Amino acid sequence: MGNGLIVSISGPSGVGKGTVIERLREMLPDSGRSISATSRAPRGEEKDGVEYYFRTREEFEKMIADGEIVEYDQYVGNYYGTPLTPLLTMSQGGQDVLLDLTVPGSLALKEKFDETVTIFLLPPSFEELRNRLVGRGTETEDLVEKRLSEARGEIEKAPKFDYVVTNRSVEQAADEIAAIMLAEHCRYQRRSVEVDTLLAE
Amino acid sequence: MGNGLIVSISGPSGVGKGTVIERLREMLPDSGRSISATSRAPRGEEKDGVEYYFRTREEFEKMIADGEIVEYDQYVGNYYGTPLTPLLTMSQGGQDVLLDLTVPGSLALKEKFDETVTIFLLPPSFEELRNRLVGRGTETEDLVEKRLSEARGEIEKAPKFDYVVTNRSVEQAADEIAAIMLAEHCRYQRRSVEVDTLLAE
Repeated sequence: MGNGLIVSISGPSGVGKGTVIERLREMLPDSGRSISATSRAPRGEEKDGVEYYFRTREEFEKMIADGEIVEYDQYVGNYYGTPLTPLLTMSQGGQDVLLDLTVPGSLALKEKFDETVTIFLLPPSFEELRNRLVGRGTETEDLVEKRLSEARGEIEKAPKFDYVVTNRSVEQAADEIAAIMLAEHCRYQRRSVEVDTLLAE
Repeated sequence: MGNGLIVSISGPSGVGKGTVIERLREMLPDSGRSISATSRAPRGEEKDGVEYYFRTREEFEKMIADGEIVEYDQYVGNYYGTPLTPLLTMSQGGQDVLLDLTVPGSLALKEKFDETVTIFLLPPSFEELRNRLVGRGTETEDLVEKRLSEARGEIEKAPKFDYVVTNRSVEQAADEIAAIMLAEHCRYQRRSVEVDTLLAE
Protein backbone atom coordinates (compact mmCIF):
# COMPACT_ATOMS: atom_id res chain seq x y z
CA MET A 1 0.00 0.00 0.00
CA GLY A 2 1.33 3.41 -0.94
CA ASN A 3 1.23 6.63 1.05
CA GLY A 4 -2.08 8.39 1.54
CA LEU A 5 -2.66 11.67 -0.27
CA ILE A 6 -2.29 15.04 1.43
CA VAL A 7 -5.10 17.13 -0.06
CA SER A 8 -5.57 20.78 0.84
CA ILE A 9 -8.73 22.65 -0.07
CA SER A 10 -8.89 26.45 -0.08
CA GLY A 11 -11.30 29.08 -1.31
CA PRO A 12 -12.79 32.44 -0.46
CA SER A 13 -15.01 32.95 2.56
CA GLY A 14 -18.60 32.09 1.63
CA VAL A 15 -17.72 29.68 -1.21
CA GLY A 16 -19.10 26.74 0.81
CA LYS A 17 -15.83 25.00 1.59
CA GLY A 18 -16.97 23.66 4.97
CA THR A 19 -20.10 22.04 3.51
CA VAL A 20 -18.17 20.48 0.62
CA ILE A 21 -15.51 19.06 2.96
CA GLU A 22 -18.23 17.71 5.27
CA ARG A 23 -19.85 15.93 2.28
CA LEU A 24 -16.43 14.57 1.23
CA ARG A 25 -15.82 13.15 4.71
CA GLU A 26 -19.15 11.30 4.45
CA MET A 27 -18.14 9.94 1.03
CA LEU A 28 -14.63 9.01 2.22
CA PRO A 29 -15.12 7.88 5.84
CA ASP A 30 -11.58 6.44 5.98
CA SER A 31 -9.92 9.75 5.20
CA GLY A 32 -7.97 11.46 7.97
CA ARG A 33 -8.66 14.82 9.51
CA SER A 34 -5.82 17.14 10.38
CA ILE A 35 -6.24 18.84 13.76
CA SER A 36 -4.75 22.33 13.94
CA ALA A 37 -2.52 23.56 16.73
CA THR A 38 -3.32 26.92 18.30
CA SER A 39 -1.98 29.20 20.99
CA ARG A 40 -5.45 30.40 22.01
CA ALA A 41 -6.94 29.06 25.22
CA PRO A 42 -9.55 26.28 25.07
CA ARG A 43 -13.15 27.49 25.27
CA GLY A 44 -15.93 25.69 27.12
CA GLU A 45 -15.74 21.92 26.59
CA GLU A 46 -12.90 22.05 24.02
CA LYS A 47 -10.29 19.32 24.61
CA ASP A 48 -6.65 19.13 23.59
CA GLY A 49 -6.25 16.89 20.53
CA VAL A 50 -9.96 17.02 19.68
CA GLU A 51 -10.90 20.52 18.43
CA TYR A 52 -7.28 21.72 18.49
CA TYR A 53 -3.89 20.91 19.93
CA PHE A 54 -3.72 23.64 22.59
CA ARG A 55 -0.21 24.99 23.11
CA THR A 56 1.24 28.09 24.78
CA ARG A 57 2.67 30.84 22.56
CA GLU A 58 6.16 29.73 23.60
CA GLU A 59 5.46 26.08 22.77
CA PHE A 60 3.94 27.10 19.43
CA GLU A 61 6.97 29.25 18.57
CA LYS A 62 9.30 26.38 19.46
CA MET A 63 7.25 24.08 17.15
CA ILE A 64 7.67 26.62 14.33
CA ALA A 65 11.42 26.83 15.00
CA ASP A 66 11.65 23.01 15.01
CA GLY A 67 9.90 22.75 11.64
CA GLU A 68 6.99 20.94 13.30
CA ILE A 69 4.43 23.45 11.95
CA VAL A 70 3.99 23.13 8.16
CA GLU A 71 1.95 26.31 7.75
CA TYR A 72 0.57 28.84 10.21
CA ASP A 73 -1.11 32.17 10.55
CA GLN A 74 -1.98 34.59 13.34
CA TYR A 75 -5.56 35.63 13.98
CA VAL A 76 -6.63 38.05 16.72
CA GLY A 77 -3.20 37.66 18.33
CA ASN A 78 -3.21 33.84 18.39
CA TYR A 79 -1.30 31.32 16.30
CA TYR A 80 -3.14 28.69 14.26
CA GLY A 81 -1.20 26.08 12.29
CA THR A 82 -0.89 22.55 10.96
CA PRO A 83 1.41 20.20 12.89
CA LEU A 84 3.68 17.99 10.79
CA THR A 85 3.86 14.70 12.73
CA PRO A 86 0.15 13.67 12.70
CA LEU A 87 0.01 14.56 8.99
CA LEU A 88 2.96 12.30 8.15
CA THR A 89 1.72 9.50 10.42
CA MET A 90 -1.66 9.41 8.67
CA SER A 91 -0.20 9.68 5.16
CA GLN A 92 2.53 7.10 5.75
CA GLY A 93 -0.12 4.77 7.21
CA GLY A 94 -1.87 4.91 3.84
CA GLN A 95 -4.63 7.27 4.93
CA ASP A 96 -5.66 10.19 2.70
CA VAL A 97 -5.73 13.43 4.69
CA LEU A 98 -8.10 16.29 3.87
CA LEU A 99 -6.98 19.74 5.00
CA ASP A 100 -9.13 22.86 5.16
CA LEU A 101 -6.55 25.64 4.75
CA THR A 102 -6.32 29.32 3.89
CA VAL A 103 -4.94 30.18 0.45
CA PRO A 104 -1.48 31.09 1.85
CA GLY A 105 -1.64 27.95 4.03
CA SER A 106 -2.19 25.69 1.01
CA LEU A 107 0.63 27.36 -0.91
CA ALA A 108 3.03 27.10 2.06
CA LEU A 109 2.21 23.40 2.47
CA LYS A 110 2.72 22.77 -1.27
CA GLU A 111 6.10 24.49 -1.08
CA LYS A 112 7.09 22.21 1.81
CA PHE A 113 5.57 19.01 0.35
CA ASP A 114 5.50 19.15 -3.40
CA GLU A 115 3.31 16.02 -3.48
CA THR A 116 0.47 17.90 -1.73
CA VAL A 117 -2.61 18.04 -3.96
CA THR A 118 -3.95 21.61 -3.82
CA ILE A 119 -7.54 22.37 -4.80
CA PHE A 120 -9.06 25.83 -5.17
CA LEU A 121 -12.81 26.03 -4.67
CA LEU A 122 -14.26 28.73 -6.92
CA PRO A 123 -17.70 30.40 -6.66
CA PRO A 124 -19.78 30.22 -9.89
CA SER A 125 -19.84 34.08 -9.91
CA PHE A 126 -19.23 37.03 -7.61
CA GLU A 127 -22.98 37.60 -7.54
CA GLU A 128 -23.49 34.08 -6.20
CA LEU A 129 -20.68 34.58 -3.66
CA ARG A 130 -22.37 37.79 -2.49
CA ASN A 131 -25.71 35.95 -2.18
CA ARG A 132 -24.08 33.23 -0.08
CA LEU A 133 -22.33 35.76 2.17
CA VAL A 134 -25.54 37.78 2.64
CA GLY A 135 -27.50 34.53 3.11
CA ARG A 136 -25.36 33.58 6.12
CA GLY A 137 -26.97 36.56 7.85
CA THR A 138 -23.92 37.02 10.07
CA GLU A 139 -22.06 39.66 8.07
CA THR A 140 -22.84 43.38 7.92
CA GLU A 141 -22.99 44.96 4.48
CA ASP A 142 -19.52 46.45 5.02
CA LEU A 143 -18.11 43.07 5.96
CA VAL A 144 -19.70 41.48 2.86
CA GLU A 145 -17.92 44.07 0.69
CA LYS A 146 -14.65 43.40 2.52
CA ARG A 147 -15.02 39.62 2.01
CA LEU A 148 -15.75 40.12 -1.71
CA SER A 149 -12.65 42.24 -2.10
CA GLU A 150 -10.56 39.63 -0.22
CA ALA A 151 -12.12 36.93 -2.43
CA ARG A 152 -10.83 38.68 -5.54
CA GLY A 153 -7.29 38.70 -4.13
CA GLU A 154 -7.57 35.01 -3.27
CA ILE A 155 -9.00 34.01 -6.67
CA GLU A 156 -6.01 35.74 -8.28
CA LYS A 157 -3.92 33.02 -6.56
CA ALA A 158 -5.91 30.17 -8.15
CA PRO A 159 -3.24 29.71 -10.90
CA LYS A 160 -0.86 28.46 -8.21
CA PHE A 161 -3.19 25.57 -7.36
CA ASP A 162 -3.16 22.14 -9.02
CA TYR A 163 -6.93 21.99 -9.51
CA VAL A 164 -9.84 24.40 -9.67
CA VAL A 165 -13.32 23.15 -8.74
CA THR A 166 -16.32 25.43 -9.20
CA ASN A 167 -18.83 24.94 -6.39
CA ARG A 168 -22.10 24.94 -8.35
CA SER A 169 -23.59 22.39 -5.95
CA VAL A 170 -22.22 20.51 -2.96
CA GLU A 171 -22.68 17.13 -4.71
CA GLN A 172 -20.95 18.18 -7.94
CA ALA A 173 -18.02 19.82 -6.13
CA ALA A 174 -17.55 16.85 -3.75
CA ASP A 175 -17.78 14.40 -6.69
CA GLU A 176 -15.11 16.33 -8.60
CA ILE A 177 -12.78 16.39 -5.58
CA ALA A 178 -13.33 12.65 -5.00
CA ALA A 179 -12.46 12.05 -8.70
CA ILE A 180 -9.30 14.16 -8.30
CA MET A 181 -8.27 12.03 -5.31
CA LEU A 182 -8.91 8.75 -7.15
CA ALA A 183 -7.00 10.05 -10.19
CA GLU A 184 -4.06 11.20 -8.06
CA HIS A 185 -3.80 7.67 -6.63
CA CYS A 186 -3.46 6.43 -10.24
CA ARG A 187 -0.54 8.74 -11.10
CA TYR A 188 2.50 6.69 -12.09
CA GLN A 189 4.57 8.19 -9.23
CA ARG A 190 2.09 6.70 -6.72
CA ARG A 191 1.77 3.36 -8.53
CA SER A 192 5.43 2.71 -9.22
CA VAL A 193 5.66 0.08 -6.48
CA GLU A 194 2.84 -1.86 -8.15
CA VAL A 195 4.68 -1.74 -11.50
CA ASP A 196 7.99 -2.78 -9.90
CA THR A 197 6.34 -5.65 -7.99
CA LEU A 198 4.82 -6.94 -11.21
CA LEU A 199 8.14 -6.75 -13.06
CA ALA A 200 9.90 -8.57 -10.19
CA GLU A 201 7.58 -11.61 -10.58
CA MET B 1 -16.09 25.70 -23.06
CA GLY B 2 -12.50 24.45 -23.01
CA ASN B 3 -10.88 21.95 -25.33
CA GLY B 4 -11.78 18.30 -25.01
CA LEU B 5 -9.17 15.95 -23.59
CA ILE B 6 -7.02 13.72 -25.78
CA VAL B 7 -6.74 10.48 -23.80
CA SER B 8 -4.65 7.57 -25.02
CA ILE B 9 -4.90 4.15 -23.43
CA SER B 10 -2.23 1.48 -23.91
CA GLY B 11 -1.40 -1.84 -22.38
CA PRO B 12 -0.12 -5.31 -23.18
CA SER B 13 -2.04 -7.71 -25.38
CA GLY B 14 -4.54 -9.61 -23.26
CA VAL B 15 -4.88 -6.96 -20.54
CA GLY B 16 -8.50 -6.29 -21.56
CA LYS B 17 -8.04 -2.85 -23.08
CA GLY B 18 -10.77 -3.27 -25.69
CA THR B 19 -13.39 -4.25 -23.10
CA VAL B 20 -12.44 -1.39 -20.77
CA ILE B 21 -12.61 1.16 -23.62
CA GLU B 22 -15.97 -0.25 -24.73
CA ARG B 23 -17.31 0.19 -21.17
CA LEU B 24 -15.90 3.74 -21.06
CA ARG B 25 -17.65 4.63 -24.31
CA GLU B 26 -20.94 3.47 -22.77
CA MET B 27 -20.25 5.63 -19.67
CA LEU B 28 -19.17 8.64 -21.76
CA PRO B 29 -21.42 8.51 -24.85
CA ASP B 30 -20.37 12.04 -25.89
CA SER B 31 -16.69 11.15 -26.15
CA GLY B 32 -15.14 11.03 -29.61
CA ARG B 33 -13.59 8.07 -31.33
CA SER B 34 -10.46 8.46 -33.38
CA ILE B 35 -10.52 6.55 -36.66
CA SER B 36 -7.14 5.27 -37.80
CA ALA B 37 -5.77 5.69 -41.28
CA THR B 38 -4.30 2.63 -43.00
CA SER B 39 -2.67 1.72 -46.28
CA ARG B 40 -4.21 -1.74 -46.30
CA ALA B 41 -7.10 -2.39 -48.68
CA PRO B 42 -10.68 -2.40 -47.33
CA ARG B 43 -12.04 -5.86 -46.57
CA GLY B 44 -15.63 -6.95 -47.17
CA GLU B 45 -18.08 -4.22 -46.20
CA GLU B 46 -15.46 -1.87 -44.68
CA LYS B 47 -16.06 1.76 -45.65
CA ASP B 48 -13.66 4.71 -45.81
CA GLY B 49 -14.08 6.91 -42.73
CA VAL B 50 -15.97 4.24 -40.79
CA GLU B 51 -13.62 1.39 -39.85
CA TYR B 52 -10.56 3.21 -41.21
CA TYR B 53 -9.55 6.02 -43.50
CA PHE B 54 -8.27 3.94 -46.43
CA ARG B 55 -5.32 5.53 -48.23
CA THR B 56 -2.71 4.29 -50.68
CA ARG B 57 0.88 3.79 -49.45
CA GLU B 58 1.87 6.93 -51.35
CA GLU B 59 -0.95 8.98 -49.84
CA PHE B 60 -0.08 7.67 -46.36
CA GLU B 61 3.58 8.56 -46.81
CA LYS B 62 2.63 12.06 -47.97
CA MET B 63 0.43 12.42 -44.84
CA ILE B 64 3.43 11.42 -42.67
CA ALA B 65 5.65 13.93 -44.49
CA ASP B 66 2.98 16.65 -44.03
CA GLY B 67 2.80 16.02 -40.28
CA GLU B 68 -0.81 14.87 -40.69
CA ILE B 69 -0.11 11.51 -38.96
CA VAL B 70 0.56 11.95 -35.23
CA GLU B 71 1.76 8.38 -34.66
CA TYR B 72 2.00 5.34 -36.88
CA ASP B 73 3.32 1.84 -37.16
CA GLN B 74 3.69 -0.81 -39.84
CA TYR B 75 2.06 -4.20 -39.48
CA VAL B 76 2.31 -6.98 -42.08
CA GLY B 77 3.60 -4.46 -44.58
CA ASN B 78 0.80 -1.90 -44.11
CA TYR B 79 0.77 1.46 -42.39
CA TYR B 80 -1.62 2.16 -39.52
CA GLY B 81 -1.72 5.59 -37.91
CA THR B 82 -3.70 8.37 -36.25
CA PRO B 83 -4.60 11.34 -38.43
CA LEU B 84 -4.20 14.77 -36.87
CA THR B 85 -7.09 16.82 -38.27
CA PRO B 86 -10.09 14.83 -36.94
CA LEU B 87 -8.36 14.64 -33.54
CA LEU B 88 -7.94 18.42 -33.34
CA THR B 89 -11.44 19.07 -34.69
CA MET B 90 -13.01 16.92 -31.96
CA SER B 91 -10.82 18.29 -29.17
CA GLN B 92 -11.23 21.94 -30.22
CA GLY B 93 -14.99 21.34 -30.43
CA GLY B 94 -14.88 20.45 -26.72
CA GLN B 95 -15.20 16.70 -27.22
CA ASP B 96 -13.02 14.32 -25.22
CA VAL B 97 -11.32 11.82 -27.53
CA LEU B 98 -10.41 8.30 -26.42
CA LEU B 99 -7.57 6.64 -28.34
CA ASP B 100 -6.65 2.98 -28.25
CA LEU B 101 -2.93 3.05 -29.07
CA THR B 102 0.16 0.88 -28.86
CA VAL B 103 2.73 1.79 -26.20
CA PRO B 104 5.05 3.52 -28.72
CA GLY B 105 1.98 5.19 -30.27
CA SER B 106 0.94 6.74 -26.93
CA LEU B 107 4.47 7.93 -26.27
CA ALA B 108 4.81 9.43 -29.76
CA LEU B 109 1.49 11.26 -29.37
CA LYS B 110 2.51 12.58 -25.93
CA GLU B 111 5.75 13.87 -27.42
CA LYS B 112 3.80 15.72 -30.11
CA PHE B 113 1.00 16.97 -27.81
CA ASP B 114 2.23 17.34 -24.29
CA GLU B 115 -1.36 17.86 -23.06
CA THR B 116 -2.26 14.28 -24.08
CA VAL B 117 -3.33 12.25 -21.05
CA THR B 118 -1.59 8.86 -21.26
CA ILE B 119 -2.90 5.88 -19.33
CA PHE B 120 -1.20 2.50 -19.00
CA LEU B 121 -3.48 -0.44 -18.31
CA LEU B 122 -1.68 -2.98 -16.13
CA PRO B 123 -2.64 -6.63 -15.51
CA PRO B 124 -3.01 -7.58 -11.81
CA SER B 125 -0.24 -10.20 -12.32
CA PHE B 126 1.58 -12.06 -15.09
CA GLU B 127 -0.31 -15.18 -14.06
CA GLU B 128 -3.62 -13.39 -14.64
CA LEU B 129 -2.34 -12.04 -17.98
CA ARG B 130 -1.39 -15.59 -19.02
CA ASN B 131 -4.86 -16.83 -17.99
CA ARG B 132 -6.52 -14.13 -20.07
CA LEU B 133 -4.33 -14.86 -23.10
CA VAL B 134 -4.93 -18.61 -22.82
CA GLY B 135 -8.65 -17.95 -22.19
CA ARG B 136 -9.01 -16.18 -25.53
CA GLY B 137 -8.34 -19.57 -27.08
CA THR B 138 -6.86 -17.96 -30.18
CA GLU B 139 -3.16 -18.10 -29.28
CA THR B 140 -0.89 -21.13 -29.45
CA GLU B 141 1.27 -21.84 -26.39
CA ASP B 142 4.29 -20.38 -28.19
CA LEU B 143 2.38 -17.23 -29.06
CA VAL B 144 1.23 -16.87 -25.41
CA GLU B 145 4.91 -17.01 -24.31
CA LYS B 146 5.82 -14.45 -26.97
CA ARG B 147 2.99 -12.10 -25.83
CA LEU B 148 4.08 -12.43 -22.17
CA SER B 149 7.64 -11.53 -23.07
CA GLU B 150 6.42 -8.53 -25.13
CA ALA B 151 4.19 -7.54 -22.18
CA ARG B 152 7.23 -7.33 -19.92
CA GLY B 153 8.96 -4.97 -22.35
CA GLU B 154 5.82 -2.83 -22.55
CA ILE B 155 5.30 -2.71 -18.77
CA GLU B 156 8.88 -1.46 -18.44
CA LYS B 157 7.63 1.65 -20.34
CA ALA B 158 4.84 2.33 -17.79
CA PRO B 159 6.99 4.96 -16.00
CA LYS B 160 6.67 7.15 -19.09
CA PHE B 161 2.87 7.27 -18.75
CA ASP B 162 0.93 9.83 -16.70
CA TYR B 163 -1.32 7.26 -15.05
CA VAL B 164 -1.30 3.54 -14.32
CA VAL B 165 -4.61 1.70 -13.91
CA THR B 166 -4.62 -1.93 -12.86
CA ASN B 167 -7.38 -3.84 -14.63
CA ARG B 168 -8.77 -5.95 -11.75
CA SER B 169 -12.28 -5.68 -13.17
CA VAL B 170 -13.76 -3.83 -16.14
CA GLU B 171 -15.95 -1.66 -13.88
CA GLN B 172 -13.12 -0.64 -11.54
CA ALA B 173 -10.72 0.14 -14.40
CA ALA B 174 -13.34 2.13 -16.36
CA ASP B 175 -14.35 4.02 -13.18
CA GLU B 176 -10.71 4.95 -12.52
CA ILE B 177 -10.21 6.17 -16.09
CA ALA B 178 -13.45 8.20 -15.92
CA ALA B 179 -12.19 9.76 -12.64
CA ILE B 180 -8.86 10.59 -14.31
CA MET B 181 -10.72 12.34 -17.14
CA LEU B 182 -12.93 14.33 -14.74
CA ALA B 183 -9.86 15.29 -12.67
CA GLU B 184 -7.91 16.35 -15.77
CA HIS B 185 -10.77 18.70 -16.68
CA CYS B 186 -10.33 20.29 -13.23
CA ARG B 187 -6.60 21.01 -13.66
CA TYR B 188 -5.93 24.73 -13.40
CA GLN B 189 -4.49 24.83 -16.95
CA ARG B 190 -7.86 23.67 -18.31
CA ARG B 191 -9.94 25.93 -16.02
CA SER B 192 -7.95 29.14 -16.45
CA VAL B 193 -10.62 30.67 -18.72
CA GLU B 194 -13.22 30.15 -15.98
CA VAL B 195 -10.96 31.88 -13.44
CA ASP B 196 -10.19 34.75 -15.83
CA THR B 197 -13.89 35.19 -16.68
CA LEU B 198 -14.74 35.42 -12.99
CA LEU B 199 -11.99 37.96 -12.34
CA ALA B 200 -13.15 40.06 -15.32
CA GLU B 201 -16.65 40.46 -13.78
